[in-house]
Amino acid sequence: MSDKLCFASDYMEGAHPAILKRMLETNLEHTAGYGMDPYSESAREKIRAACRAPEADVFFLVGGTQTNATVIDALLRPWQGVVAAETGHIATHEAGAIEFGGHKVLTLPQREGKLSAADVAGCVDAWRRDDNREHTVMPGMVYISQPTEYGTLYSLSELEALSAVCREAGIPLYLDGARLAYALATPSNDAALPDIARLCDAFYIGGTKCGALLGEAVVFPRRGTAPHFFTLVKQHGALLAKGRVAGIQFDTLFTDGLYDAIGKSAIAAADRIRRALDEKGYAQAIPSPTNQIFVVLSPEKAKALSRRVEMGFWENLGDGRVVMRLATSWATTDGDVDGLIQAL
Amino acid sequence: MSDKLCFASDYMEGAHPAILKRMLETNLEHTAGYGMDPYSESAREKIRAACRAPEADVFFLVGGTQTNATVIDALLRPWQGVVAAETGHIATHEAGAIEFGGHKVLTLPQREGKLSAADVAGCVDAWRRDDNREHTVMPGMVYISQPTEYGTLYSLSELEALSAVCREAGIPLYLDGARLAYALATPSNDAALPDIARLCDAFYIGGTKCGALLGEAVVFPRRGTAPHFFTLVKQHGALLAKGRVAGIQFDTLFTDGLYDAIGKSAIAAADRIRRALDEKGYAQAIPSPTNQIFVVLSPEKAKALSRRVEMGFWENLGDGRVVMRLATSWATTDGDVDGLIQAL
Amino acid sequence: MSDKLCFASDYMEGAHPAILKRMLETNLEHTAGYGMDPYSESAREKIRAACRAPEADVFFLVGGTQTNATVIDALLRPWQGVVAAETGHIATHEAGAIEFGGHKVLTLPQREGKLSAADVAGCVDAWRRDDNREHTVMPGMVYISQPTEYGTLYSLSELEALSAVCREAGIPLYLDGARLAYALATPSNDAALPDIARLCDAFYIGGTKCGALLGEAVVFPRRGTAPHFFTLVKQHGALLAKGRVAGIQFDTLFTDGLYDAIGKSAIAAADRIRRALDEKGYAQAIPSPTNQIFVVLSPEKAKALSRRVEMGFWENLGDGRVVMRLATSWATTDGDVDGLIQAL
Amino acid sequence: MSDKLCFASDYMEGAHPAILKRMLETNLEHTAGYGMDPYSESAREKIRAACRAPEADVFFLVGGTQTNATVIDALLRPWQGVVAAETGHIATHEAGAIEFGGHKVLTLPQREGKLSAADVAGCVDAWRRDDNREHTVMPGMVYISQPTEYGTLYSLSELEALSAVCREAGIPLYLDGARLAYALATPSNDAALPDIARLCDAFYIGGTKCGALLGEAVVFPRRGTAPHFFTLVKQHGALLAKGRVAGIQFDTLFTDGLYDAIGKSAIAAADRIRRALDEKGYAQAIPSPTNQIFVVLSPEKAKALSRRVEMGFWENLGDGRVVMRLATSWATTDGDVDGLIQAL
Repeated sequence: MSDKLCFASDYMEGAHPAILKRMLETNLEHTAGYGMDPYSESAREKIRAACRAPEADVFFLVGGTQTNATVIDALLRPWQGVVAAETGHIATHEAGAIEFGGHKVLTLPQREGKLSAADVAGCVDAWRRDDNREHTVMPGMVYISQPTEYGTLYSLSELEALSAVCREAGIPLYLDGARLAYALATPSNDAALPDIARLCDAFYIGGTKCGALLGEAVVFPRRGTAPHFFTLVKQHGALLAKGRVAGIQFDTLFTDGLYDAIGKSAIAAADRIRRALDEKGYAQAIPSPTNQIFVVLSPEKAKALSRRVEMGFWENLGDGRVVMRLATSWATTDGDVDGLIQAL
Repeated sequence: MSDKLCFASDYMEGAHPAILKRMLETNLEHTAGYGMDPYSESAREKIRAACRAPEADVFFLVGGTQTNATVIDALLRPWQGVVAAETGHIATHEAGAIEFGGHKVLTLPQREGKLSAADVAGCVDAWRRDDNREHTVMPGMVYISQPTEYGTLYSLSELEALSAVCREAGIPLYLDGARLAYALATPSNDAALPDIARLCDAFYIGGTKCGALLGEAVVFPRRGTAPHFFTLVKQHGALLAKGRVAGIQFDTLFTDGLYDAIGKSAIAAADRIRRALDEKGYAQAIPSPTNQIFVVLSPEKAKALSRRVEMGFWENLGDGRVVMRLATSWATTDGDVDGLIQAL
Repeated sequence: MSDKLCFASDYMEGAHPAILKRMLETNLEHTAGYGMDPYSESAREKIRAACRAPEADVFFLVGGTQTNATVIDALLRPWQGVVAAETGHIATHEAGAIEFGGHKVLTLPQREGKLSAADVAGCVDAWRRDDNREHTVMPGMVYISQPTEYGTLYSLSELEALSAVCREAGIPLYLDGARLAYALATPSNDAALPDIARLCDAFYIGGTKCGALLGEAVVFPRRGTAPHFFTLVKQHGALLAKGRVAGIQFDTLFTDGLYDAIGKSAIAAADRIRRALDEKGYAQAIPSPTNQIFVVLSPEKAKALSRRVEMGFWENLGDGRVVMRLATSWATTDGDVDGLIQAL
Repeated sequence: MSDKLCFASDYMEGAHPAILKRMLETNLEHTAGYGMDPYSESAREKIRAACRAPEADVFFLVGGTQTNATVIDALLRPWQGVVAAETGHIATHEAGAIEFGGHKVLTLPQREGKLSAADVAGCVDAWRRDDNREHTVMPGMVYISQPTEYGTLYSLSELEALSAVCREAGIPLYLDGARLAYALATPSNDAALPDIARLCDAFYIGGTKCGALLGEAVVFPRRGTAPHFFTLVKQHGALLAKGRVAGIQFDTLFTDGLYDAIGKSAIAAADRIRRALDEKGYAQAIPSPTNQIFVVLSPEKAKALSRRVEMGFWENLGDGRVVMRLATSWATTDGDVDGLIQAL
């Protein structure tokens, strides 16, 4: 509630106004609980259509850590772990939620936040060749995020390669789409929702960071991938009694192209900022094409800019310079971008 | 969205209109995430005041199962289990969430859904006297719900007795207040929020079933009761990125007596229904004084009534009669009650 | 090391001398670790033959609680719990080991320590008929012990009925044979090892309480029942580096009928004691036909007898009388029995 | 049971003959179960004396993975993880046993298998300085092994530095002594048992790989470090009914300097081999001074030697050469060493 320009993150406001409007309109209707309401059902149908996956199982959960923990617990057997980039959200900022569920995160090196198919294949192969493999945790699924924690994108061919490795290995590929709207709206992106549905065994379409109050839509493109998933959602404390709260939001996000529009406006804003940074000679620490920008600032500039702009601290470069993260969202106005560019 | 009268449960609508109004008003404000926003802080202060517990730690979680699992995991050590009535929600309808966290639910018999202090004392004492106690699960905390799953209430003296047993045993008393508004608003209730805060080591003030879209406010009356609870909330997937979604709702619920008002209107409606049932000669299976009514119906009456009224099935009595549950809420209108009474 | 007669339990001595002899003979041989040694392989073959289950997977673990926890974890999926008698060892004296692994123990009433097929069928049926079943823990396997914790035996027809219920329900039947030698050697027993192998999906042949230093042989009669069980054994901390320690013992137990002989001598001793108790007018609290005897004693008699005989305390009857447990084993001599009978 | 020379590992035979002899002598004595027998008590006293830790809590478990999982579970709270070298046994070859217990292994780089105090301090410091630390797993204890998985040793000053970092951070230091006998017997070692007891909060004295059939002695030098540890041992399936099996072995190992003697003979053998390797111009991949030797072999030499000597495969060097591990033990005879040297 400061009067600074807010580029701190993409979850600093409420919801896209169209969502609140729809919640208001439907507020007094009586609907069944636990996701059995017609809004949730409608949202599921629209998501199946958007994914061109008519048989998909779709579930609405509340937040990202919860979703990752529940899906991973559903897809792994006790002797298996989940392969992730060492920078993967599940490996770093989820307070040990995966381990709480009993599973090891098997980390591999990353490049620009991404796992390579070759590294995953190597990991699977090393396990298979290891005479002591039954004393170790078997790589049992692969976790990626799109965009990554670094704002970067897997290309379609990279996703195809990862998918091929996973299918050869007989293990599922799971994509964390906490910020998927921004990936889908990035001009250089060539992996559309149906591609993701075709290549992944599970993924989630992020709501919280893409205009909803909360909510993530888990999609299993092939029906029956995760048996009794409803019970696991309940067991993980992820089941909303008023399931409509997520259902109405996703129904709105997938009506009249709102999810796309939210992504596009944020990417347009981010692109304007990136161009301005380039023009003014600022370096960017990570070549993110999505709604997160990682700008390198001198200590003086960081201090001065912080007085006018809310940013996220990313890291110290060791030479005095810092990397700050700027994020855009549906709530970023042209005026906000103008103000930021002026302040740079 | 049927045109039946809706008495199926207290979570069949959206939120109390005052809550949605406040969410709309504040929607475009930028606030910090994860409960660090000013609305969450304001709500915490109001809850502390309502509980007369100025030092209380207050956290906002999303739903009941999640809250129970997180609090119980925070309060138990690995060698301990949680004592509950055999009808307790954690023992029956939470899909094994407590066991998922590694803890046993130690069930005791119930009377009208309640645990007795004597039974809890007996359980603790039996463990202490058992020469093999170190081969068994130690009773490490006590779980009760107010109102209970049967809509009944612990009296103040019953709570005092349970609290005394727990303190003598050195184990925490935890109260699940999923429907606490209705308990507090029941005329015969003599255990106010400050009493609960004084007698319990942890409890939660229910939002989801008391007028909010979602949200439960966990209160540890004595600061520091549960160290690193924030991390546990995250680890359990219970942390809202947009913490304000819960914060604004509880801030509204605890402004101008809204939480009390919500309880009172539901109890007034339930009392009207109970009087009508008595007058018309219907038996009630459980003497619930709160917003849930357990009416005994002949098979024919149940069938006929179900055509006009949405109710919850509770149980078969074995002699052909059934028990149906009617629940009132903030959304129950006088017209709804009139219609129901007419239909009886 | 007192000079009292020892009837306290069946694990108060070392191992049957034939076992120690064999360990000594083989002590300096070099063998592979982790159960890959020729003694373990030989023991597996002999157990397969004794069970008439030539395809069985056989694993050697160390103790009973560990075995139960590992097998149950291997057979259950996360949304399932294990059905057991309320007196089942896993429900009472395993310190919450099953819950530590994330699973609920679903208890049913017992009669003489036994589950009835009808009760199990009722439990499965109730879950299937429950509209809210996906909010509850699914009965996912059945745990029984033979003999039971009360020393009683399931008859062949009782096992067949339980097995039929489990197969109809599509869930595995698991038998805890911690004291299986005594069951098999009881004259009235009509369920032989091949019957158990035919009717159960998993069971263990107890070593620790049947003459070994330690060790339990887990048998999955149908190959592949529990994939990656070796890894689960390791994960549960149940894998012996020197797997031969268990392998040599079971190889010896299943050579020249030693396992049968151990059972028979203990049962013969117990039968002599039971006859003497009957003759002298002592009541037995539980009609156990195996190596455990539950004798009812007046307080005076209990005190007097305790000076000469080590017994296990079982329970107070409330009227001053106590139930004491006497257990026989391979180590019980005729002289011990003579001494006990004289002391009665 | 091949006629090759056996240097495959230090757990390929039974037990040191003195142990078997003692088991035989005591076999028919009646003793209490679960570690309450006089041999276990005597062993505890001898270990306390050897550690100069008269108040120590001492427990006997069965194997290493189990011991690590149980101790780590006892010392960590749910929001904490265990810091280990990336080569630490708990991070690699325990099949996810630590994660099964709900805890993350926080890995740091190693040098010759060792953690540095500076790296641990850096890890703790980074957590403390991280504004998002409550979203991450807190470093809650430090795991080291002595000797390490690479056969190397922490010097006394290195242990003192690690201990100082841990105490400053307020987190326990735990030492895995699976092969501790060999560390203690190494001429260059300057960290004696009393040093370890003084500097660590928990450690275990390995039996399985140091001459016992099985068994590890957990020592908490300060009484009460791990409350209800007995129950955790049971819960983890690590409690021996016949506790004497471990007790007699450790009582024997700590009588008349047997544990020292076992270490010394193995180190003397390893030193002879190392000298021979040096003389014959073989490289050693890791400068291990203990009972494990990591010799670099050409493919031809590896093949030739494998025909006469059982060794453990360690790794491919990428250039065709392989590293093979040779291990000595109490069972290694002078003749074995002569034969090996001749075969080199």
